[in-house]
Amino acid sequence: MNFTAQIKVMPLKDLLDPQGKAVLGGLHNLGLTSVDDVRIGKHIDVQIEAASKEEAHQIATEAAVKLLSNQVMENFEVTILS
Amino acid sequence: MNFTAQIKVMPLKDLLDPQGKAVLGGLHNLGLTSVDDVRIGKHIDVQIEAASKEEAHQIATEAAVKLLSNQVMENFEVTILS
Repeated sequence: MNFTAQIKVMPLKDLLDPQGKAVLGGLHNLGLTSVDDVRIGKHIDVQIEAASKEEAHQIATEAAVKLLSNQVMENFEVTILS
Repeated sequence: MNFTAQIKVMPLKDLLDPQGKAVLGGLHNLGLTSVDDVRIGKHIDVQIEAASKEEAHQIATEAAVKLLSNQVMENFEVTILS
């Protein structure tokens, strides 16, 4: 069966996110002053061929750990769409 | 009230995603051969000060249109967490 895994990779809460801070400044310059904070990460859609949802989740987690995220600076969440 | 908006910006389906193709090759090299396709976009968390969920959604959409996405190459989805 084919599953779609969504992997969200975000910078850790305690770390400064310079890209987010730059975008926040840009939004304020555009007049969107009600925006207080911006954090920017990656959203990765992965198509996985697997026997079960659990297997797909395991493969997506392995991909996130081995390649897609840097666990020193980022955390990730895996969601399998059914 | 303070709302958290999640904005997901992804490359359009019909466009080639070279970054995703490179990651797909990397995953295959790592032995994750059951992965068929990868597409990579941005995930943006925005804190918004607004009177209502509708107003927060409107501000997040304006931010996505004006700055966060390039509508020639990308589409976006806004979700307000309650």
